Amino acid sequence: MTSLPNANSQIVLASRPDGLPTEANFRLEQTPMPDPGAGEVLVKVHFLSLDPYMRGRMRDRKSYVPPYKIGEVFGGDAVGEVIRSETEGFEAGDMVHGRFGCQTYAAVAGKTLRKVGSDARPLSLALGILGMPGITAYFGLLDLGQPQSGETVVVSAGSGAVGAIVGQIAKIKGCRTVGIAGSDEKNAYCIDELGFDAAINYKTSKNLVKDLRAACPDGVDVYFDNVGGPVSDAVMMCLNNHARIPVCGQISGYNSEEVDVGPRLIWQLIVKRARMEGFLVFDYFDRYAEGLDQLSAWIKAGELKFKEDVSDGIESVPAAFIGMLQGKNFGKQIVKLID
Amino acid sequence: MTSLPNANSQIVLASRPDGLPTEANFRLEQTPMPDPGAGEVLVKVHFLSLDPYMRGRMRDRKSYVPPYKIGEVFGGDAVGEVIRSETEGFEAGDMVHGRFGCQTYAAVAGKTLRKVGSDARPLSLALGILGMPGITAYFGLLDLGQPQSGETVVVSAGSGAVGAIVGQIAKIKGCRTVGIAGSDEKNAYCIDELGFDAAINYKTSKNLVKDLRAACPDGVDVYFDNVGGPVSDAVMMCLNNHARIPVCGQISGYNSEEVDVGPRLIWQLIVKRARMEGFLVFDYFDRYAEGLDQLSAWIKAGELKFKEDVSDGIESVPAAFIGMLQGKNFGKQIVKLID
Repeated sequence: MTSLPNANSQIVLASRPDGLPTEANFRLEQTPMPDPGAGEVLVKVHFLSLDPYMRGRMRDRKSYVPPYKIGEVFGGDAVGEVIRSETEGFEAGDMVHGRFGCQTYAAVAGKTLRKVGSDARPLSLALGILGMPGITAYFGLLDLGQPQSGETVVVSAGSGAVGAIVGQIAKIKGCRTVGIAGSDEKNAYCIDELGFDAAINYKTSKNLVKDLRAACPDGVDVYFDNVGGPVSDAVMMCLNNHARIPVCGQISGYNSEEVDVGPRLIWQLIVKRARMEGFLVFDYFDRYAEGLDQLSAWIKAGELKFKEDVSDGIESVPAAFIGMLQGKNFGKQIVKLID
Repeated sequence: MTSLPNANSQIVLASRPDGLPTEANFRLEQTPMPDPGAGEVLVKVHFLSLDPYMRGRMRDRKSYVPPYKIGEVFGGDAVGEVIRSETEGFEAGDMVHGRFGCQTYAAVAGKTLRKVGSDARPLSLALGILGMPGITAYFGLLDLGQPQSGETVVVSAGSGAVGAIVGQIAKIKGCRTVGIAGSDEKNAYCIDELGFDAAINYKTSKNLVKDLRAACPDGVDVYFDNVGGPVSDAVMMCLNNHARIPVCGQISGYNSEEVDVGPRLIWQLIVKRARMEGFLVFDYFDRYAEGLDQLSAWIKAGELKFKEDVSDGIESVPAAFIGMLQGKNFGKQIVKLID
């Protein structure tokens, strides 16, 4: 049995950001080792996931997940190892996924945990392609986007945790696949490693609509939107009739304290009889197993690749999170908490 | 048989408008009486429909219907009487619907016509509740909006040609129904005559979101959007989870030569897992009979009321059209062309 150290390390929210967060919005604290009560387990946290939606929780505004309180442990999804169990169904050595937050040890109710299967090795895969991003890509693209063989699928943040999976599934389904990302390196990765047909650098493009039309000679049938803002405005001008737009994220606006402003383009939905639909991965909870089984099968068959951007140690959380909001990460942003 | 006069009166597009059209953009012309060729009929036009989408056709821009050319006959849908037929299947005295444009006589191919059944009396009903606006309301609300009994339906331009029908069908389906219109008189009509549960005057409201929340204590499940712009922005902030937004029109932006700008609110679709879908009535061509039969049945049962705003004579077209774009009409805008 692992010997317990005296202290738990946590990153807590020190203050609310105004625009892009800074390191001053976070604080590293040492707290007593949590003591699991009846029905709980003590988890040693191995990997923490950093995700764009967490920026929303730093704002004091009601949404689909409540805001962090000042002084509250930052962060959400994580995976780790049960080191003590006070509940049936779990024992020391089990690998588990839960909302442990950004801390090295967590005492949580057993009913909030999901066991991580042996397909997810390294364990961090349960935070990426075999976790929330994978499930998000799978159901968002297939359920809402309904790509048909021969159609064109465009995905923004195409090299990102969700976008890279969306684009590869689109290729598996026989679609022309075009990514949009913010560096030539990311776009080369989309084409050379992930097999996308084309990729556009939105930061260096002089005319995004023109570049999209060149990359999508038959128009856009499915646009998987991770970003919103001017990138999505450009795609809106290239839709085919009966296009589908699963809306997964709007990261371009997440750091605005004021409501972001842009051109009104909803008339394009009329002209193109197009459908735009927002979704949350939580709504697919009952179908996680279906998605995970298929994603695992594709990984084993060599049809799905993945990339992680792993930062080291709990003290690296603020910089890694701020970098991710600026698109500096390359692959799914993970923090490794154990040695 | 009707004796033929020497001349046909037409309203043609004299110039393209910059912003709201003016009377100078139109010209009344006298032309020779058209002479139907083989396969054609000569129609005496009784009623002309004026619709917001016609503003789009005054702009020299590719869309789902081609722009009017300078000097081309203005206008679209109309109904009239066949006074001479050079094709099988039609004879003098038949009442027909077609895209005759804004002229007193038209020679058109028989295959472009639809006979108007005896349910549509006065004949102008075939341009309103038993025509394109009725079909638009019927399929847009029921197919895309999918209102369930007990849900709340909000409709903008609630007293308009489409909105008044949408709201009444929502009531038939057992929904709480809230209209938004631009005068107290229109809103009183929605409540007192059409049976809406509440109506909001967007021009005098001091806080549209607050007024919507008061009128929709259980939130908004279906928003039938005829207008776009700030009215729709407000409704976006009041959506329930899994709300549906059939997008029928965006009249608030039709007179802008520049792209209209507004707050980016697509993140609301994510948070509420909501669906926004544009549509065109033409896509329901194969199902017109289904819609017309049900609308006729509801009219006969006294469950659907309608109101027309009829302007008199072809010379009244420019003022009536400009007024409609400003919301000055009250009910479906029709022009009566015959004495």
